[in-house]
Amino acid sequence: MEKLHKIGFSKLTPLEEALEKLFSKIHVNPIEEIIIKEVLNRILAEDIISEIDIPPFDRSAMDGYAIKAEDSFRASPKNPKKIRFTGTIEIGESSNLRIYKGEAIRISTGAPIPEGSDAVIKIEDTEIENDLIILYTSLAPGKNISKKGEDLKKSTLVLSKGTELKAEHIALLSSLGYNKVKVRTKPKISIFSTGDELIEPGVSLQPGKIYNSNTPMISALVNLYGGIIIRGEGIKDDKKAIKTKLIEAAEDSQIIIFTGGTSVGTKDYLPEIIGELGSILAHGIAMRPGTPVLIGFLKNSLIFCLPGTPVAAYVSFLKISGPAMRKMLGCSVLDPRIEIMAIINKDVPVSGLGYLHYLRVKIEKEKNEIIAVPVKLKGSGVISSLTKSDGIIEIPPHQEGLKKGEKVIIKLFPR
Amino acid sequence: MEKLHKIGFSKLTPLEEALEKLFSKIHVNPIEEIIIKEVLNRILAEDIISEIDIPPFDRSAMDGYAIKAEDSFRASPKNPKKIRFTGTIEIGESSNLRIYKGEAIRISTGAPIPEGSDAVIKIEDTEIENDLIILYTSLAPGKNISKKGEDLKKSTLVLSKGTELKAEHIALLSSLGYNKVKVRTKPKISIFSTGDELIEPGVSLQPGKIYNSNTPMISALVNLYGGIIIRGEGIKDDKKAIKTKLIEAAEDSQIIIFTGGTSVGTKDYLPEIIGELGSILAHGIAMRPGTPVLIGFLKNSLIFCLPGTPVAAYVSFLKISGPAMRKMLGCSVLDPRIEIMAIINKDVPVSGLGYLHYLRVKIEKEKNEIIAVPVKLKGSGVISSLTKSDGIIEIPPHQEGLKKGEKVIIKLFPR
Repeated sequence: MEKLHKIGFSKLTPLEEALEKLFSKIHVNPIEEIIIKEVLNRILAEDIISEIDIPPFDRSAMDGYAIKAEDSFRASPKNPKKIRFTGTIEIGESSNLRIYKGEAIRISTGAPIPEGSDAVIKIEDTEIENDLIILYTSLAPGKNISKKGEDLKKSTLVLSKGTELKAEHIALLSSLGYNKVKVRTKPKISIFSTGDELIEPGVSLQPGKIYNSNTPMISALVNLYGGIIIRGEGIKDDKKAIKTKLIEAAEDSQIIIFTGGTSVGTKDYLPEIIGELGSILAHGIAMRPGTPVLIGFLKNSLIFCLPGTPVAAYVSFLKISGPAMRKMLGCSVLDPRIEIMAIINKDVPVSGLGYLHYLRVKIEKEKNEIIAVPVKLKGSGVISSLTKSDGIIEIPPHQEGLKKGEKVIIKLFPR
Repeated sequence: MEKLHKIGFSKLTPLEEALEKLFSKIHVNPIEEIIIKEVLNRILAEDIISEIDIPPFDRSAMDGYAIKAEDSFRASPKNPKKIRFTGTIEIGESSNLRIYKGEAIRISTGAPIPEGSDAVIKIEDTEIENDLIILYTSLAPGKNISKKGEDLKKSTLVLSKGTELKAEHIALLSSLGYNKVKVRTKPKISIFSTGDELIEPGVSLQPGKIYNSNTPMISALVNLYGGIIIRGEGIKDDKKAIKTKLIEAAEDSQIIIFTGGTSVGTKDYLPEIIGELGSILAHGIAMRPGTPVLIGFLKNSLIFCLPGTPVAAYVSFLKISGPAMRKMLGCSVLDPRIEIMAIINKDVPVSGLGYLHYLRVKIEKEKNEIIAVPVKLKGSGVISSLTKSDGIIEIPPHQEGLKKGEKVIIKLFPR
């Protein structure tokens, strides 16, 4: 009879320790410059310092008349004051018009304030009488003028490298005149799901088989985390096939992600193969689900062997592979998940002290509270426990579970 | 002197009323079938009913031996029991092996349970002695077996149409054998920023001009909300040019988004043009920022004229154009923003009762609380007030602001 592999992990690495070692070995990707149209969700690779003032000139905040404020002093509906209409400045114009005492220039919102003017009276507070403008209100100097640099001064640091660029950042960059920007190149990633039981979706199911859901799931996560997938396929539990694929992928991948084949079963060949060809940084992490995770290296490729059970693979990706990708991208925030606070609605005992536990929860709103409802689950293969959940509560290794009514932090699934 | 346009809006439409009218006129887009690899962030257009059980067969949840539970009864380390080793079932195999009393079959996690077996004993709880397996623990029937259909029963509704497909949904679809899926086609969108003051980023700034930041910002939002941009450009405040562009865009766009030119200034031509060529559903919405928004139609195109000030354009998109896009996509959730609860850290008075107010806030964590800190701002042109914020608090039209310490809902910026 075949020799049994050793059972269980001789030593589990705490997650924090594994991540610290891992991150210390990751280099940030090279820089590329891309046009602003294509920059959504990319990671900024340069500090952005404003080279202009915003607004770039004193401009009108209203449609009205540029005047000298003193000409309006003591004006009121009962005591209107009249001044002379001398011209118009439209938005977008650079005008040489100048204002002298007793004069008004028609001005649009956003148009440059003419020299000599220190206030804009709103059109609603005026009337026109031939070439005279009647003022019905008194203005303080500066009224309805947006001063040059008021929103943003020249030479201010406006965005730091490591920022994930969203619509509002793109607006800010454009308003400063950027039509291209430096970002980090996307990590190149190969994904392999191992297992003799796997068949690809789209064909009919055979006895003893299940559909490969890990390749599509991890591919979606890689896209979400800003990587490029250069390979995504299933492999049989065949030592030679795995070796060949691994060597091939190590030629061009920054990260190689396997699912399955990393535990301590008879056909879990990955630890042996990676130990032989490359090096293992950690195998066996003190977390549940996700214990069998292996982190290793081969040439310049970082290797993650995630468990074959989909929920364990998903959670391991969020905690380990995803943050590693963001480290390569130079992100200032390695874990992009949003954290919200909630009240847990039942006791959650934990078996296995010393493990970091991931609890899937659904969010419910109740009056003025957000309630975390643990999603019933059995084992880490139940994908529907993910689609029924909104996020994960992490129970630290030395905490004995959660008490009903306790305040908890939910990390929402990445979006 | 030129004739002045009327000042201000004669009547403002409450946002809810405008949205109700708007949504009632939107048809859901046609269906297309796409491969699962490309389905991330798309909107499911069909209910998904499982056609198989998951797991599809009784399978082992452990590496160990399939046995008859009764053979293990009363076994313990002090009272081991011995049974005969009769074969092996690997994962992915369809086996004809059968178990009789006193027999054990080696089985891997995920492999099908042989007929006659009703429990799996973990390998750690056994030893091998020639062709005998020594059992050191007693198992209840059913132990370590995942029953067919335990995770998901055949004919269950697993995902509803209107679901936004994320990694976990893609995993679930794949596990059910789907390699393609029906989604709604992406809305085709034209974006125009109007204004004589606008110049495109990438060239040097001229006096009186500002950079066009609205086209890039709205483009990013359209991408984020699942649309296809077929046109994105700046136009001068020129009635003929705007008309020409509008007519051209109405030929092939489901949605046409303008920024600027929609208020009541002398060069705000859009209301007049749209009133003449098409129809106006609402012009002037009771919200701040965003009051000048116009919603209209031309042929089969829906038109949104958003304010030219970037923050107002951003907020109006989130509240009106974005949800309209998601309505076309058949989304079950029209506003995708995540809501979190927080405590506001200062009084926020509101001027202008009757308007829905949008307050930009930053999130800070303090002990066990999430604190909403209003971001200082002056006017709705200040884009950096967005990049410094995390989300928006909506103050309803008839609420007189917020009181320090009050519980508030923050709608996080879309990601």
